[in-house]
Amino acid sequence: MVIIMNPEATSQNIDEVIKAINSVGLEAKIMEGAQQKIVGVIGDKTKLASVAIDALPGVESSVAISKSYKLASREFHPQSSVIDVSGVKIGGSEPVIMAGPCAVESREQLLKSAKIVAEGGAQFLRGGAYKPRTSPYSFQGLEVEGLKYLAEAREVTGLKIVTEVTTVEGIEPVAEYADMLQIGARNMQNFGLLKEVGKCKRPVLLKRGLAATIDEWLNAAEYIMNAGNPDVVLCERGIRTYETYTRNTLDLSAVAAVKHLSHLPIIVDPSHGTGKWRMVKPMALAAIAAGADGLMMEMHPNPARALSDGSQSLTPEHYRSIMSGIKKLATFLREENLIGLDE
Amino acid sequence: MVIIMNPEATSQNIDEVIKAINSVGLEAKIMEGAQQKIVGVIGDKTKLASVAIDALPGVESSVAISKSYKLASREFHPQSSVIDVSGVKIGGSEPVIMAGPCAVESREQLLKSAKIVAEGGAQFLRGGAYKPRTSPYSFQGLEVEGLKYLAEAREVTGLKIVTEVTTVEGIEPVAEYADMLQIGARNMQNFGLLKEVGKCKRPVLLKRGLAATIDEWLNAAEYIMNAGNPDVVLCERGIRTYETYTRNTLDLSAVAAVKHLSHLPIIVDPSHGTGKWRMVKPMALAAIAAGADGLMMEMHPNPARALSDGSQSLTPEHYRSIMSGIKKLATFLREENLIGLDE
Amino acid sequence: MVIIMNPEATSQNIDEVIKAINSVGLEAKIMEGAQQKIVGVIGDKTKLASVAIDALPGVESSVAISKSYKLASREFHPQSSVIDVSGVKIGGSEPVIMAGPCAVESREQLLKSAKIVAEGGAQFLRGGAYKPRTSPYSFQGLEVEGLKYLAEAREVTGLKIVTEVTTVEGIEPVAEYADMLQIGARNMQNFGLLKEVGKCKRPVLLKRGLAATIDEWLNAAEYIMNAGNPDVVLCERGIRTYETYTRNTLDLSAVAAVKHLSHLPIIVDPSHGTGKWRMVKPMALAAIAAGADGLMMEMHPNPARALSDGSQSLTPEHYRSIMSGIKKLATFLREENLIGLDE
Amino acid sequence: MVIIMNPEATSQNIDEVIKAINSVGLEAKIMEGAQQKIVGVIGDKTKLASVAIDALPGVESSVAISKSYKLASREFHPQSSVIDVSGVKIGGSEPVIMAGPCAVESREQLLKSAKIVAEGGAQFLRGGAYKPRTSPYSFQGLEVEGLKYLAEAREVTGLKIVTEVTTVEGIEPVAEYADMLQIGARNMQNFGLLKEVGKCKRPVLLKRGLAATIDEWLNAAEYIMNAGNPDVVLCERGIRTYETYTRNTLDLSAVAAVKHLSHLPIIVDPSHGTGKWRMVKPMALAAIAAGADGLMMEMHPNPARALSDGSQSLTPEHYRSIMSGIKKLATFLREENLIGLDE
Repeated sequence: MVIIMNPEATSQNIDEVIKAINSVGLEAKIMEGAQQKIVGVIGDKTKLASVAIDALPGVESSVAISKSYKLASREFHPQSSVIDVSGVKIGGSEPVIMAGPCAVESREQLLKSAKIVAEGGAQFLRGGAYKPRTSPYSFQGLEVEGLKYLAEAREVTGLKIVTEVTTVEGIEPVAEYADMLQIGARNMQNFGLLKEVGKCKRPVLLKRGLAATIDEWLNAAEYIMNAGNPDVVLCERGIRTYETYTRNTLDLSAVAAVKHLSHLPIIVDPSHGTGKWRMVKPMALAAIAAGADGLMMEMHPNPARALSDGSQSLTPEHYRSIMSGIKKLATFLREENLIGLDE
Repeated sequence: MVIIMNPEATSQNIDEVIKAINSVGLEAKIMEGAQQKIVGVIGDKTKLASVAIDALPGVESSVAISKSYKLASREFHPQSSVIDVSGVKIGGSEPVIMAGPCAVESREQLLKSAKIVAEGGAQFLRGGAYKPRTSPYSFQGLEVEGLKYLAEAREVTGLKIVTEVTTVEGIEPVAEYADMLQIGARNMQNFGLLKEVGKCKRPVLLKRGLAATIDEWLNAAEYIMNAGNPDVVLCERGIRTYETYTRNTLDLSAVAAVKHLSHLPIIVDPSHGTGKWRMVKPMALAAIAAGADGLMMEMHPNPARALSDGSQSLTPEHYRSIMSGIKKLATFLREENLIGLDE
Repeated sequence: MVIIMNPEATSQNIDEVIKAINSVGLEAKIMEGAQQKIVGVIGDKTKLASVAIDALPGVESSVAISKSYKLASREFHPQSSVIDVSGVKIGGSEPVIMAGPCAVESREQLLKSAKIVAEGGAQFLRGGAYKPRTSPYSFQGLEVEGLKYLAEAREVTGLKIVTEVTTVEGIEPVAEYADMLQIGARNMQNFGLLKEVGKCKRPVLLKRGLAATIDEWLNAAEYIMNAGNPDVVLCERGIRTYETYTRNTLDLSAVAAVKHLSHLPIIVDPSHGTGKWRMVKPMALAAIAAGADGLMMEMHPNPARALSDGSQSLTPEHYRSIMSGIKKLATFLREENLIGLDE
Repeated sequence: MVIIMNPEATSQNIDEVIKAINSVGLEAKIMEGAQQKIVGVIGDKTKLASVAIDALPGVESSVAISKSYKLASREFHPQSSVIDVSGVKIGGSEPVIMAGPCAVESREQLLKSAKIVAEGGAQFLRGGAYKPRTSPYSFQGLEVEGLKYLAEAREVTGLKIVTEVTTVEGIEPVAEYADMLQIGARNMQNFGLLKEVGKCKRPVLLKRGLAATIDEWLNAAEYIMNAGNPDVVLCERGIRTYETYTRNTLDLSAVAAVKHLSHLPIIVDPSHGTGKWRMVKPMALAAIAAGADGLMMEMHPNPARALSDGSQSLTPEHYRSIMSGIKKLATFLREENLIGLDE
């Protein structure tokens, strides 16, 4: 941490800052500039948690230097992690595709979807049994009934199941039926939920919050890992900006950022990221070219009849066409060795 | 809802849209423009939830006209609500002040704080026993022990207690010790938590999410009210923008917006809203002048030793000076009849 | 400037960084942390402009410590500036009000407006003769003809004239007819224009850019001041955020921030800041309570017939009511000594 | 345009709205909903410019349906445009690459850069002779001297020249030496400048504003086209969001959006879009996969010595590696027919 003093700070002010730093067993170093003095803190900065340096007289501001997450950081774990979900490896050489309807609406709709998803070549079936919706009057999901249909679809197709868990009480049933627990964007900083899925044995798909920084997102992963669950996969799903043409602004540079900062795999959801089915194909290809480890896409046998997010759902035809393109692109990129950051 | 067709939409496309609208018992009206046709939907739009109009061929986009919340809306309830919290009325003619440390750190710190808060003239003591923190390694709160100190401080000072609840399991203990349950910004769309506090008898202070629109915020209030709890007070605490000088951008126009759209009281938190104690006084005065029903402010007996958010905490001296200013300003505004929207 | 090295940076990397710093005559200081080394730069950092430290191998990132503006900074000029515009003092003890229509539409409309503005007690008449509009097909202003009407309105009413200049060629005619030149939000970083108004003798009203940080805004003021014109007044007019209910998000905390960082006066435009006439009154009162040195408000004799921004224009009745409230509030705040930051 | 009335609007209010619409020769259609009445306007909405419907009593809000740009829209011009710049075609089957240093710093630096750029296979040399910089104390460019070096580099290498024009007076010299005029992000709504480059014969590269919506961007293109210059190429360069890890948030979905809404070509600048050279390669590949017609990238023979933006500049080695990857990817995508939106 670097502490920037006011130009008019007195030497007594600086002494007080140093005293505060020393009081928690840390060392301070002073740097005298032309206009301002700067105080640097050396040592494990988590100790500073009990001192509010910024509130001391004469302090203009402070800047954190080291990251507050460790288990999720590439510094701590230089090699990229590969997460095994019931035998499917995420973060390996093949992109992993998760597809399916936004919500589980009925047994028939789900089984029909699952068949199309499997035939198209995806490894995971997605579908919400518990739906977090802006309005209490929107469809809230089929809950346990929906989980059972998901499990049935797995038996029929062999697809792995990823589905959202929205409450602590929901962890047990979801973990019973699903292969992977999804934490949705609105719950990315629901720390109680993060701690509990951290105690669970199932791998977790952690979506980026609507307005979460990459740093906050990796700290959310840290909550899960610190509670005992190392199997976290990140999912970029668009962030909130002033632009209204798209539902969110899909931040594909987050893929490159996460690859630099963390060893965890990252996939991309172009359906929520854009809110428009027409944009899913170009953004899916772009995500793979940017180095994403996989995709999550919404597909519905009949988008116009979807109970949720129909306008961003692919038809079966579009889905198949995208899957074919993605496979070819991934093979091309691997053969040409075009994936990965220069360092 | 208004549905905008593509300029190249065929009459068959339009027929399909009309059919979809009729299929859920609603009526469609067509408007032919120079370049584009528009289809209007008449009747209770919640029925449309089962049709994804945007996914139909020939549809360019759709625009929602009516609001999705009802119980929280002023249309539904034209008169401003006054919420009674253990005898203190929020939304009445006097601004209600909630002050105290960010976190309950110790019995001594809390009792000392409470005494200063009470002497300054606030009605509520705030202080977190459960702290949602970005990093799992930051101080997470004293939990039930903290709640007991809060209750003890109430006995000593007569202040009412408002404190955050972060999990469903936490509702019972918090409701036992506190007068008012706070839902923090990060949990504004934790719908499971909203539904459960909706079943609780305690009034709720609902903070605006970090990047929540006013519409989403009022829908979050609707979740609580729809579950049976009508006693919701809103709290503007700054939104996330590109500006980095302040911790958040305090959106005081939200006060005027909420007063127009809803009957619920709204207070303002200038401490989190700015992240700098220096800005608390001008923003507190501005909030009252904008028509806020109260304020929530952080005060710490020794900000430099605060375990959380010390840089935005007032010293006791600043707190007293602000309280005196606020009281005079509120009296002035009331006497001059300067509060309230022109309609 | 503080340079943060990668944890894996070699001592050769650090030597190169130090060499680069020394090469422009600056001194480097190294700080060794537990995980990372930090290099601090001492001396006039403008010399660093010719070295891209971040591009050196082993550098993770760098953090600027000192501000890049000087003439606009309070450090450089501790006493608040009062700007004299044709005898009216902005930044003194009385708030200065600028009111009038968004655009000059006709001689009749303007003279009618000016009379109402003057009677209500404002000191300035505003009105655009050159209008920057998103679409080339919207009304673009009466240009020189509009300037002549403004000058005529000044003769009749005694009001000072503030009007926007949008091009370098426009500076001469606008400076001939107006008392104060306005730089609009879209031109805040039109540096060619800033330099030229910097050579002009007229005081400048510098609106904040749509998505400008406070730092960029003060740097824009620095362009004008550095070119020779010290008479700059800032105007907060709302920033662009994700919220769509209001046209912009009025950032009243910018008033407190500017008062801390700069000696220049700052006024607030609640009309553009909210885009809704209903919100002008509460935001105008809030701005004054926050310490603003004045206001700019849109008023139109017949808002429904305005050629630009009618939905945010006050009627004459609302204008008069707001003016009366503002005067009383300003007197109250002055008498109670409630304005100004605690330091 | 669709006008939404207040629930409590009277029939007299509605009559006034209809009268206002009729007064400019347009037709109104009323739609009666359960709670609210809606009025639709039929005909050329530009006529509505002289009526501020939102300011009429009883009006809650209004929603624009048709776009305000025409010449730039795909509706008006369904076939994709190919822009010829001195013989190089932008928008055709091959991506066009523009590369070079951020700023022209010296004859030697530029000629060295140009040689590397040409050998790597790009078609355009970029380099700023006029630099818009946040601080007046940063390097502002070599101006006409810089333009001459650019022209010399063209003679030596055969590369086309694209360089920024920042003022109306600068158009003539820049148009004399360069093949293509760049309008920078900060000038995207400098309407005076747009109109003047619209009268120029040189093709224009129009960068997206820092916080411009896609709609505003296409309206800026409309200014240029409406003034007589149809040769506009758009350039996505990142938008301003709350995320601070990257300099901007590169919005690759804008590529797909522009392809749907407009016939104009669009290229992507991953250097400014991310601010980090490490991210240029993955974002360049992603942009091409998303369907971009080309790229603009910063390359410097010695990034650590760049006078501007060194931290985002590629070294010659990185540049060559990226160019090779892009060519292969573009060929692959073309052969597999993977570019283009599904409709």
